[in-house]
Amino acid sequence: MPISARNKLTGKVMSIETGMITAKVQLDVGGQKLTSIVSKDAVNELGLKEGDSVDALIKATSVMLMN
Amino acid sequence: MPISARNKLTGKVMSIETGMITAKVQLDVGGQKLTSIVSKDAVNELGLKEGDSVDALIKATSVMLMN
Amino acid sequence: MPISARNKLTGKVMSIETGMITAKVQLDVGGQKLTSIVSKDAVNELGLKEGDSVDALIKATSVMLMN
Amino acid sequence: MPISARNKLTGKVMSIETGMITAKVQLDVGGQKLTSIVSKDAVNELGLKEGDSVDALIKATSVMLMN
Amino acid sequence: MPISARNKLTGKVMSIETGMITAKVQLDVGGQKLTSIVSKDAVNELGLKEGDSVDALIKATSVMLMN
Amino acid sequence: MPISARNKLTGKVMSIETGMITAKVQLDVGGQKLTSIVSKDAVNELGLKEGDSVDALIKATSVMLMN
Repeated sequence: MPISARNKLTGKVMSIETGMITAKVQLDVGGQKLTSIVSKDAVNELGLKEGDSVDALIKATSVMLMN
Repeated sequence: MPISARNKLTGKVMSIETGMITAKVQLDVGGQKLTSIVSKDAVNELGLKEGDSVDALIKATSVMLMN
Repeated sequence: MPISARNKLTGKVMSIETGMITAKVQLDVGGQKLTSIVSKDAVNELGLKEGDSVDALIKATSVMLMN
Repeated sequence: MPISARNKLTGKVMSIETGMITAKVQLDVGGQKLTSIVSKDAVNELGLKEGDSVDALIKATSVMLMN
Repeated sequence: MPISARNKLTGKVMSIETGMITAKVQLDVGGQKLTSIVSKDAVNELGLKEGDSVDALIKATSVMLMN
Repeated sequence: MPISARNKLTGKVMSIETGMITAKVQLDVGGQKLTSIVSKDAVNELGLKEGDSVDALIKATSVMLMN
Protein backbone atom coordinates (compact mmCIF):
# COMPACT_ATOMS: atom_id res chain seq x y z
CA MET A 1 0.00 0.00 0.00
CA PRO A 2 1.70 3.22 -1.15
CA ILE A 3 0.71 5.18 1.96
CA SER A 4 2.37 5.45 5.37
CA ALA A 5 -0.86 4.61 7.26
CA ARG A 6 -0.28 0.97 8.24
CA ASN A 7 -3.83 -0.40 8.36
CA LYS A 8 -6.32 -0.89 5.55
CA LEU A 9 -9.54 -2.80 6.16
CA THR A 10 -11.91 -3.40 3.27
CA GLY A 11 -15.58 -2.99 4.06
CA LYS A 12 -19.02 -2.14 2.76
CA VAL A 13 -20.95 1.06 3.53
CA MET A 14 -23.96 0.20 5.73
CA SER A 15 -25.21 3.72 6.47
CA ILE A 16 -24.29 7.38 6.08
CA GLU A 17 -25.51 10.15 8.38
CA THR A 18 -24.67 13.71 7.39
CA GLY A 19 -24.23 16.70 9.69
CA MET A 20 -23.33 20.27 8.76
CA ILE A 21 -19.55 19.82 8.78
CA THR A 22 -18.94 16.14 9.53
CA ALA A 23 -20.59 12.85 8.57
CA LYS A 24 -20.79 9.43 10.16
CA VAL A 25 -20.20 6.40 7.93
CA GLN A 26 -20.87 2.91 9.27
CA LEU A 27 -19.02 0.06 7.57
CA ASP A 28 -19.33 -3.70 7.73
CA VAL A 29 -15.79 -5.10 7.83
CA GLY A 30 -15.88 -8.88 7.74
CA GLY A 31 -19.02 -8.98 9.84
CA GLN A 32 -17.84 -6.38 12.36
CA LYS A 33 -19.22 -2.83 12.49
CA LEU A 34 -16.67 -0.04 11.99
CA THR A 35 -17.67 3.60 12.53
CA SER A 36 -15.90 6.47 10.77
CA ILE A 37 -16.41 10.21 11.21
CA VAL A 38 -15.05 12.23 8.28
CA SER A 39 -15.87 15.62 6.80
CA LYS A 40 -19.16 15.96 4.92
CA ASP A 41 -17.10 17.18 1.96
CA ALA A 42 -15.19 13.90 1.88
CA VAL A 43 -18.39 11.85 1.69
CA ASN A 44 -19.59 13.99 -1.20
CA GLU A 45 -16.28 13.99 -3.06
CA LEU A 46 -15.86 10.22 -2.71
CA GLY A 47 -19.49 9.83 -3.83
CA LEU A 48 -20.11 7.33 -1.05
CA LYS A 49 -23.48 5.60 -0.83
CA GLU A 50 -24.90 2.54 0.95
CA GLY A 51 -23.64 -0.74 -0.43
CA ASP A 52 -20.39 0.71 -1.80
CA SER A 53 -17.16 -1.12 -1.20
CA VAL A 54 -14.67 1.15 0.58
CA ASP A 55 -11.35 0.89 2.40
CA ALA A 56 -10.93 2.08 5.97
CA LEU A 57 -7.46 3.51 6.54
CA ILE A 58 -6.07 3.76 10.08
CA LYS A 59 -2.66 4.99 11.27
CA ALA A 60 -0.79 2.62 13.60
CA THR A 61 -0.53 5.38 16.22
CA SER A 62 -4.34 5.65 16.26
CA VAL A 63 -4.78 2.03 17.40
CA MET A 64 -4.94 1.84 21.19
CA LEU A 65 -4.77 -1.47 23.07
CA MET A 66 -6.84 -2.67 26.01
CA ASN A 67 -6.96 -5.93 27.93
CA MET B 1 -18.58 -0.37 25.71
CA PRO B 2 -18.24 2.29 28.42
CA ILE B 3 -15.81 4.41 26.43
CA SER B 4 -16.41 7.11 23.83
CA ALA B 5 -14.06 5.50 21.26
CA ARG B 6 -16.51 3.87 18.84
CA ASN B 7 -14.52 0.91 17.53
CA LYS B 8 -13.30 -2.15 19.37
CA LEU B 9 -11.78 -5.06 17.46
CA THR B 10 -10.74 -8.17 19.35
CA GLY B 11 -7.47 -9.72 18.24
CA LYS B 12 -4.47 -11.78 19.22
CA VAL B 13 -0.92 -10.44 19.68
CA MET B 14 1.30 -11.82 16.88
CA SER B 15 4.49 -9.87 17.63
CA ILE B 16 5.88 -7.08 19.78
CA GLU B 17 8.86 -4.91 18.84
CA THR B 18 10.14 -2.50 21.45
CA GLY B 19 11.93 0.80 20.87
CA MET B 20 13.19 3.28 23.44
CA ILE B 21 9.94 5.25 23.82
CA THR B 22 7.40 3.49 21.59
CA ALA B 23 6.60 -0.11 20.68
CA LYS B 24 4.98 -1.80 17.70
CA VAL B 25 2.37 -4.47 18.37
CA GLN B 26 1.04 -6.58 15.50
CA LEU B 27 -2.39 -8.14 15.99
CA ASP B 28 -4.34 -10.76 14.10
CA VAL B 29 -7.94 -9.56 13.93
CA GLY B 30 -10.12 -12.17 12.30
CA GLY B 31 -7.38 -13.15 9.89
CA GLN B 32 -6.36 -9.56 9.06
CA LYS B 33 -3.15 -7.96 10.34
CA LEU B 34 -3.58 -4.83 12.46
CA THR B 35 -0.54 -2.75 13.48
CA SER B 36 -0.52 -0.59 16.59
CA ILE B 37 2.17 1.80 17.83
CA VAL B 38 1.82 2.62 21.52
CA SER B 39 4.24 3.72 24.23
CA LYS B 40 6.73 1.15 25.51
CA ASP B 41 5.36 1.84 29.00
CA ALA B 42 1.87 0.76 27.88
CA VAL B 43 3.16 -2.58 26.59
CA ASN B 44 4.91 -3.18 29.91
CA GLU B 45 2.01 -2.05 32.07
CA LEU B 46 -0.51 -4.17 30.12
CA GLY B 47 1.94 -7.08 30.35
CA LEU B 48 1.40 -7.86 26.67
CA LYS B 49 3.05 -10.91 25.15
CA GLU B 50 2.66 -12.99 21.98
CA GLY B 51 -0.52 -15.05 21.90
CA ASP B 52 -2.44 -12.77 24.28
CA SER B 53 -5.98 -11.80 23.45
CA VAL B 54 -6.29 -8.01 23.32
CA ASP B 55 -8.78 -5.39 22.14
CA ALA B 56 -7.82 -2.72 19.62
CA LEU B 57 -9.63 0.53 20.33
CA ILE B 58 -9.99 3.14 17.56
CA LYS B 59 -11.76 6.51 17.62
CA ALA B 60 -14.26 7.09 14.81
CA THR B 61 -12.41 10.26 13.80
CA SER B 62 -9.23 8.20 13.27
CA VAL B 63 -10.86 6.05 10.57
CA MET B 64 -10.23 7.54 7.11
CA LEU B 65 -12.04 6.29 4.01
CA MET B 66 -10.63 5.59 0.56
CA ASN B 67 -12.17 4.24 -2.64
CA MET C 1 -5.16 1.16 33.94
CA PRO C 2 -5.68 -1.70 31.43
CA ILE C 3 -5.52 0.58 28.37
CA SER C 4 -2.56 1.86 26.38
CA ALA C 5 -3.70 5.51 26.59
CA ARG C 6 -1.38 6.93 29.27
CA ASN C 7 -3.50 9.68 30.80
CA LYS C 8 -6.70 9.42 32.81
CA LEU C 9 -8.12 12.47 34.54
CA THR C 10 -11.23 12.10 36.69
CA GLY C 11 -13.77 14.88 36.36
CA LYS C 12 -17.40 15.89 36.59
CA VAL C 13 -19.66 16.74 33.64
CA MET C 14 -20.47 20.47 33.70
CA SER C 15 -22.36 20.75 30.40
CA ILE C 16 -23.23 18.80 27.27
CA GLU C 17 -23.99 20.39 23.89
CA THR C 18 -25.20 18.09 21.15
CA GLY C 19 -24.79 18.55 17.38
CA MET C 20 -25.92 16.25 14.59
CA ILE C 21 -22.84 13.99 14.56
CA THR C 22 -20.61 15.24 17.37
CA ALA C 23 -21.13 16.57 20.89
CA LYS C 24 -19.16 18.85 23.20
CA VAL C 25 -18.76 17.80 26.82
CA GLN C 26 -17.25 20.21 29.34
CA LEU C 27 -15.66 18.68 32.42
CA ASP C 28 -14.42 20.09 35.67
CA VAL C 29 -11.14 18.34 36.48
CA GLY C 30 -9.85 19.44 39.86
CA GLY C 31 -11.09 22.97 39.31
CA GLN C 32 -9.82 23.22 35.73
CA LYS C 33 -12.14 23.14 32.71
CA LEU C 34 -11.51 20.33 30.21
CA THR C 35 -13.37 20.27 26.87
CA SER C 36 -14.02 17.05 24.97
CA ILE C 37 -15.57 16.57 21.53
CA VAL C 38 -16.84 13.03 20.98
CA SER C 39 -19.52 11.50 18.77
CA LYS C 40 -23.14 12.15 19.71
CA ASP C 41 -23.60 8.37 19.78
CA ALA C 42 -20.95 8.07 22.49
CA VAL C 43 -22.71 10.59 24.74
CA ASN C 44 -25.96 8.66 24.34
CA GLU C 45 -24.42 5.24 24.83
CA LEU C 46 -22.50 6.35 27.93
CA GLY C 47 -25.71 7.96 29.20
CA LEU C 48 -23.78 11.09 30.17
CA LYS C 49 -25.58 13.90 31.96
CA GLU C 50 -24.59 16.98 33.96
CA GLY C 51 -23.12 16.17 37.35
CA ASP C 52 -21.91 12.69 36.35
CA SER C 53 -18.45 11.60 37.34
CA VAL C 54 -16.47 10.61 34.25
CA ASP C 55 -12.87 9.86 33.26
CA ALA C 56 -11.11 11.78 30.50
CA LEU C 57 -8.70 9.54 28.62
CA ILE C 58 -5.86 11.10 26.60
CA LYS C 59 -3.10 9.39 24.59
CA ALA C 60 0.44 10.57 25.38
CA THR C 61 0.99 11.44 21.70
CA SER C 62 -1.99 13.83 21.87
CA VAL C 63 -0.36 15.97 24.57
CA MET C 64 1.59 18.85 23.00
CA LEU C 65 3.95 21.03 25.01
CA MET C 66 4.37 24.80 24.91
CA ASN C 67 6.51 27.21 26.90
CA MET D 1 -5.62 31.41 24.34
CA PRO D 2 -4.91 32.31 20.69
CA ILE D 3 -4.89 28.71 19.46
CA SER D 4 -7.74 26.44 18.39
CA ALA D 5 -6.69 23.61 20.73
CA ARG D 6 -9.24 23.94 23.56
CA ASN D 7 -7.29 22.61 26.55
CA LYS D 8 -4.23 24.06 28.27
CA LEU D 9 -3.01 22.59 31.53
CA THR D 10 -0.06 24.19 33.28
CA GLY D 11 2.44 21.79 34.79
CA LYS D 12 6.01 21.16 35.82
CA VAL D 13 8.46 18.83 34.06
CA MET D 14 9.17 15.83 36.31
CA SER D 15 11.27 13.74 33.91
CA ILE D 16 12.42 13.55 30.30
CA GLU D 17 13.38 10.34 28.54
CA THR D 18 14.83 10.65 25.06
CA GLY D 19 14.65 8.12 22.21
CA MET D 20 16.04 8.43 18.71
CA ILE D 21 13.03 10.18 17.16
CA THR D 22 10.57 10.72 20.01
CA ALA D 23 10.82 11.66 23.69
CA LYS D 24 8.65 11.09 26.73
CA VAL D 25 8.02 14.03 29.05
CA GLN D 26 6.28 13.47 32.38
CA LEU D 27 4.52 16.46 33.89
CA ASP D 28 3.02 17.14 37.28
CA VAL D 29 -0.25 18.99 36.70
CA GLY D 30 -1.81 19.99 39.99
CA GLY D 31 -0.61 16.83 41.66
CA GLN D 32 -1.63 14.53 38.81
CA LYS D 33 0.89 12.90 36.45
CA LEU D 34 0.50 13.74 32.76
CA THR D 35 2.58 11.91 30.14
CA SER D 36 3.43 13.47 26.77
CA ILE D 37 5.24 11.91 23.82
CA VAL D 38 6.62 14.52 21.41
CA SER D 39 9.48 14.57 18.93
CA LYS D 40 13.01 14.65 20.31
CA ASP D 41 13.55 17.80 18.24
CA ALA D 42 10.72 19.54 20.08
CA VAL D 43 12.27 18.81 23.48
CA ASN D 44 15.57 20.22 22.28
CA GLU D 45 14.09 23.28 20.60
CA LEU D 46 11.93 24.12 23.63
CA GLY D 47 15.00 23.59 25.82
CA LEU D 48 12.94 21.54 28.28
CA LYS D 49 14.55 20.32 31.49
CA GLU D 50 13.34 18.94 34.81
CA GLY D 51 11.65 21.51 37.01
CA ASP D 52 10.60 23.74 34.13
CA SER D 53 7.10 25.13 34.03
CA VAL D 54 5.37 24.12 30.80
CA ASP D 55 1.87 24.09 29.31
CA ALA D 56 0.27 20.89 28.05
CA LEU D 57 -1.95 21.58 25.05
CA ILE D 58 -4.67 19.08 24.10
CA LYS D 59 -7.24 19.27 21.30
CA ALA D 60 -10.86 18.69 22.36
CA THR D 61 -11.19 15.84 19.83
CA SER D 62 -8.26 14.06 21.55
CA VAL D 63 -10.11 13.82 24.88
CA MET D 64 -12.02 10.53 25.11
CA LEU D 65 -14.56 9.83 27.84
CA MET D 66 -15.06 6.69 29.91
CA ASN D 67 -17.42 5.82 32.75
CA MET E 1 8.40 28.19 17.68
CA PRO E 2 7.77 27.60 21.40
CA ILE E 3 5.41 24.67 20.83
CA SER E 4 6.12 20.99 20.30
CA ALA E 5 3.99 20.79 17.13
CA ARG E 6 6.65 20.77 14.38
CA ASN E 7 4.81 22.39 11.48
CA LYS E 8 3.54 25.94 11.14
CA LEU E 9 2.22 27.18 7.80
CA THR E 10 1.14 30.79 7.46
CA GLY E 11 -2.02 31.37 5.46
CA LYS E 12 -5.05 33.52 4.85
CA VAL E 13 -8.65 32.62 5.73
CA MET E 14 -10.64 32.08 2.52
CA SER E 15 -13.92 30.84 3.99
CA ILE E 16 -15.51 29.76 7.27
CA GLU E 17 -18.46 27.39 7.51
CA THR E 18 -19.97 26.88 10.94
CA GLY E 19 -21.81 23.82 12.25
CA MET E 20 -23.29 23.25 15.69
CA ILE E 21 -20.12 21.93 17.36
CA THR E 22 -17.39 22.13 14.71
CA ALA E 23 -16.45 24.57 11.95
CA LYS E 24 -14.58 24.26 8.67
CA VAL E 25 -11.96 26.90 7.87
CA GLN E 26 -10.39 27.00 4.41
CA LEU E 27 -6.97 28.64 4.17
CA ASP E 28 -4.84 29.74 1.26
CA VAL E 29 -1.25 28.75 2.08
CA GLY E 30 1.11 29.98 -0.62
CA GLY E 31 -1.45 29.34 -3.31
CA GLN E 32 -2.48 25.92 -2.02
CA LYS E 33 -5.81 25.27 -0.29
CA LEU E 34 -5.61 23.93 3.27
CA THR E 35 -8.75 22.75 5.08
CA SER E 36 -9.05 22.78 8.87
CA ILE E 37 -11.86 21.47 11.05
CA VAL E 38 -11.79 22.94 14.55
CA SER E 39 -14.42 23.55 17.22
CA LYS E 40 -16.94 26.32 16.60
CA ASP E 41 -15.83 27.78 19.94
CA ALA E 42 -12.27 28.11 18.67
CA VAL E 43 -13.36 30.08 15.60
CA ASN E 44 -15.33 32.43 17.83
CA GLU E 45 -12.62 32.82 20.45
CA LEU E 46 -9.92 33.48 17.83
CA GLY E 47 -12.32 35.95 16.16
CA LEU E 48 -11.50 34.47 12.76
CA LYS E 49 -12.98 36.06 9.65
CA GLU E 50 -12.31 35.93 5.91
CA GLY E 51 -9.08 37.63 4.88
CA ASP E 52 -7.41 37.20 8.26
CA SER E 53 -3.83 36.01 8.40
CA VAL E 54 -3.58 32.84 10.48
CA ASP E 55 -1.08 30.06 11.20
CA ALA E 56 -1.92 26.42 10.61
CA LEU E 57 -0.25 24.20 13.19
CA ILE E 58 0.25 20.50 12.45
CA LYS E 59 1.94 17.82 14.58
CA ALA E 60 4.61 15.78 12.79
CA THR E 61 2.77 12.55 13.66
CA SER E 62 -0.30 13.87 11.82
CA VAL E 63 1.55 14.12 8.50
CA MET E 64 1.14 10.90 6.50
CA LEU E 65 3.17 10.17 3.38
CA MET E 66 2.03 8.72 0.06
CA ASN E 67 3.82 8.01 -3.21
CA MET F 1 -8.36 12.74 -4.37
CA PRO F 2 -10.09 9.41 -3.57
CA ILE F 3 -9.37 9.61 0.17
CA SER F 4 -11.26 11.31 2.97
CA ALA F 5 -8.16 13.16 4.27
CA ARG F 6 -8.72 16.69 2.95
CA ASN F 7 -5.17 17.96 2.50
CA LYS F 8 -2.49 16.80 0.11
CA LEU F 9 0.74 18.77 -0.26
CA THR F 10 3.31 17.66 -2.81
CA GLY F 11 6.92 17.85 -1.67
CA LYS F 12 10.41 16.48 -1.99
CA VAL F 13 12.21 14.37 0.61
CA MET F 14 15.07 16.40 2.12
CA SER F 15 16.19 13.96 4.84
CA ILE F 16 15.23 10.73 6.55
CA GLU F 17 16.23 9.81 10.11
CA THR F 18 15.37 6.33 11.28
CA GLY F 19 14.71 5.18 14.86
CA MET F 20 13.79 1.72 16.09
CA ILE F 21 10.02 2.01 15.58
CA THR F 22 9.45 5.44 14.04
CA ALA F 23 11.22 7.61 11.47
CA LYS F 24 11.39 11.34 10.80
CA VAL F 25 11.04 12.51 7.22
CA GLN F 26 11.68 16.15 6.34
CA LEU F 27 10.01 17.46 3.19
CA ASP F 28 10.40 20.62 1.19
CA VAL F 29 6.91 21.77 0.21
CA GLY F 30 7.09 24.80 -2.04
CA GLY F 31 10.07 26.15 -0.16
CA GLN F 32 8.65 25.46 3.30
CA LYS F 33 9.94 22.66 5.54
CA LEU F 34 7.38 20.03 6.57
CA THR F 35 8.25 17.38 9.16
CA SER F 36 6.55 13.99 9.26
CA ILE F 37 6.94 11.19 11.80
CA VAL F 38 5.75 7.84 10.48
CA SER F 39 6.59 4.23 11.28
CA LYS F 40 9.99 2.94 10.19
CA ASP F 41 8.13 0.18 8.33
CA ALA F 42 6.29 2.77 6.24
CA VAL F 43 9.54 4.43 5.13
CA ASN F 44 10.90 1.04 4.09
CA GLU F 45 7.74 -0.11 2.36
CA LEU F 46 7.38 3.17 0.44
CA GLY F 47 11.07 2.91 -0.44
CA LEU F 48 11.56 6.59 0.43
CA LYS F 49 14.94 8.20 -0.15
CA GLU F 50 16.28 11.75 -0.36
CA GLY F 51 15.21 13.61 -3.47
CA ASP F 52 12.03 11.57 -3.98
CA SER F 53 8.80 13.34 -4.77
CA VAL F 54 6.15 12.46 -2.18
CA ASP F 55 2.72 13.64 -1.09
CA ALA F 56 2.02 14.72 2.49
CA LEU F 57 -1.51 13.80 3.51
CA ILE F 58 -3.14 15.60 6.45
CA LYS F 59 -6.66 15.21 7.88
CA ALA F 60 -8.61 18.43 8.29
CA THR F 61 -9.13 17.69 12.00
CA SER F 62 -5.34 17.57 12.45
CA VAL F 63 -4.90 21.20 11.33
CA MET F 64 -5.01 23.54 14.32
CA LEU F 65 -5.24 27.31 13.93
CA MET F 66 -3.34 30.02 15.79
CA ASN F 67 -3.29 33.81 15.50
